[in-house]
Amino acid sequence: MKTDLTPSHLAFVPFVSVHNMMRLVNTMGAEGFITELAAYIEEDFKRWPEFDKTPRVASHSHEGVIELMPTADAELYGFKYVNGHPKNMKEGFQTVTAFGVLSSVSNGYPVLLTEMTILTALRTAATSALVGRYLAPEGSKVMAMIGNGAQCEFQALAFRALCGINTLRLYDIDPAATAKAKRNLEGQGFDITTCTSGQEAVEGAQIVTTCTADKQYATILSDNMIGRGQHINAIGGDCPGKTELHKDILLRSDIFVEYPEQTRIEGEIQQLADDHPVTELWKVMRGEAQGRRDAAQITLFDSVGFAIEDFSALRFVRDKVDGTDFAEPLDMLADPDDPRDLFGMVQRAKG
Amino acid sequence: MKTDLTPSHLAFVPFVSVHNMMRLVNTMGAEGFITELAAYIEEDFKRWPEFDKTPRVASHSHEGVIELMPTADAELYGFKYVNGHPKNMKEGFQTVTAFGVLSSVSNGYPVLLTEMTILTALRTAATSALVGRYLAPEGSKVMAMIGNGAQCEFQALAFRALCGINTLRLYDIDPAATAKAKRNLEGQGFDITTCTSGQEAVEGAQIVTTCTADKQYATILSDNMIGRGQHINAIGGDCPGKTELHKDILLRSDIFVEYPEQTRIEGEIQQLADDHPVTELWKVMRGEAQGRRDAAQITLFDSVGFAIEDFSALRFVRDKVDGTDFAEPLDMLADPDDPRDLFGMVQRAKG
Repeated sequence: MKTDLTPSHLAFVPFVSVHNMMRLVNTMGAEGFITELAAYIEEDFKRWPEFDKTPRVASHSHEGVIELMPTADAELYGFKYVNGHPKNMKEGFQTVTAFGVLSSVSNGYPVLLTEMTILTALRTAATSALVGRYLAPEGSKVMAMIGNGAQCEFQALAFRALCGINTLRLYDIDPAATAKAKRNLEGQGFDITTCTSGQEAVEGAQIVTTCTADKQYATILSDNMIGRGQHINAIGGDCPGKTELHKDILLRSDIFVEYPEQTRIEGEIQQLADDHPVTELWKVMRGEAQGRRDAAQITLFDSVGFAIEDFSALRFVRDKVDGTDFAEPLDMLADPDDPRDLFGMVQRAKG
Repeated sequence: MKTDLTPSHLAFVPFVSVHNMMRLVNTMGAEGFITELAAYIEEDFKRWPEFDKTPRVASHSHEGVIELMPTADAELYGFKYVNGHPKNMKEGFQTVTAFGVLSSVSNGYPVLLTEMTILTALRTAATSALVGRYLAPEGSKVMAMIGNGAQCEFQALAFRALCGINTLRLYDIDPAATAKAKRNLEGQGFDITTCTSGQEAVEGAQIVTTCTADKQYATILSDNMIGRGQHINAIGGDCPGKTELHKDILLRSDIFVEYPEQTRIEGEIQQLADDHPVTELWKVMRGEAQGRRDAAQITLFDSVGFAIEDFSALRFVRDKVDGTDFAEPLDMLADPDDPRDLFGMVQRAKG
């Protein structure tokens, strides 16, 4: 029997820290990262029926929610842990933090553990802009951004990389948030107008992105603000009791969703009847349903974020970090020489 | 604005590696560890109604299962990731590997990430022996152990520490497993008899522990093997389609379970009618239901493992490693100085 005390390579799970995720993003460039990630997301949307889809498992408290979002295909299993605590920001914490794991379906061993706070911001932006490619008016250049928090800059870069947006109209209820976004995005070469109201922000925009963070029913967009041909990218309404759009806008829009079972509970369409028609985006990407029909149509992506997007992100990161120093080995799995001799392994560790 | 690039202490999650879990077990001694852990489990069973109880979220494949087991009280949220792949052993992998996370309910931030392969073995054993204290015949000294795999030694130590067992009668369909268990347990001072059949193993035993690993209906214990007054600690039948006991034994036993909703699907009692009477162990521990009634009664702990036991184990480990070098800080949470400036944090990391 081997009595080598060095853990086998099976004991180690590749781990991507926040530091290494930032290095990876900066090495690739945020737009390069988002563009490649969007290709993984599109690939997975196009094989949507292959996935084992489970609604997220949410644990709600007065202060927020902690969720587990699992999904799997025949080869890989992934899940994301994510919290949402709107009151965190005031206390100096992130509203949303996340990490995720990718595992082998055939033996159950994790093959990646990674930070996902930054990665979630990137995958949310990548998904929005990927959807924008199917739904935004042709030749879109101007995007209104209402809500200039943590997601704002990632959305802007994603829409430039995938849809050609170069002009931004920023508005946030807190001018400090707008100033922060302007500072960051000017450095990225965008043409930026800061606005003093949502109404002003949407003027002349082909795309309207809403990403505010209040955990309540709100009316970030009222009916009069949206005109013919606009594409609405609604990010912020993503849990029961939280919406951003006036119901009348929904009734004038063609609505596109990730996973109707989840969006009807969490998205803007929680305001509508359970059988209100929506189009599933995977069908649009497979060419089985129509995306934008004409230049006058109002399109709405009612984004809530689905586990398959996280799965794509985990798959992308694993492919990127495999065999590089962006991942460090984490001693997370007990792997005795004889699988039945877990106790002996513990005993021998006494040395 | 601070532009310090050192991550804040909020960015770090205490991580207990396999190496450090083994150090902790060896520092405390396995029996000392189990005894203290059992006290945490008992404490949590006694406040059972306070927990947010969700059935485990399982992803099944041909080769096995990957599960997430979450639970929470008002202050802490915990979940365990665990796989079960019976074919792994032949391929040199563990049948079961696990890790877990404990988080603050109030802000959603993880406060502990730990290996749980070893910890699960310890918590399963601690739970069995804790239950044994309520159900086993008084003055029990002899335990039969059918199935001498990875769980065997932990069960033996737990039953010595909590119930006074000092004599073991070992049987496994594979003599190599029995030889392994005997070798490990002789070093621990047990009086050991190796047996050539399950029938021989149960002779004279006050407690009968079954922990075999086949993912199928099996009859490890047939009706004639169990006599008056014995306590059966049935560990192995823990998923749909997997049982160890002949149905006739169940019909002669008083059956005790962790969480009926889960045990009726996963435990031995999946062989019985949905309304077959069972007693919940938390009620026994609170004195609201009777444990062992008399010396002639056959008692059965139909163990499947419930999320609250993992929660207790996570809580125990956190208390033990807090402020020690058994935990190492893991850079897992993005924590920008300005929570809304996630993008700026990534940008500044370019250095």
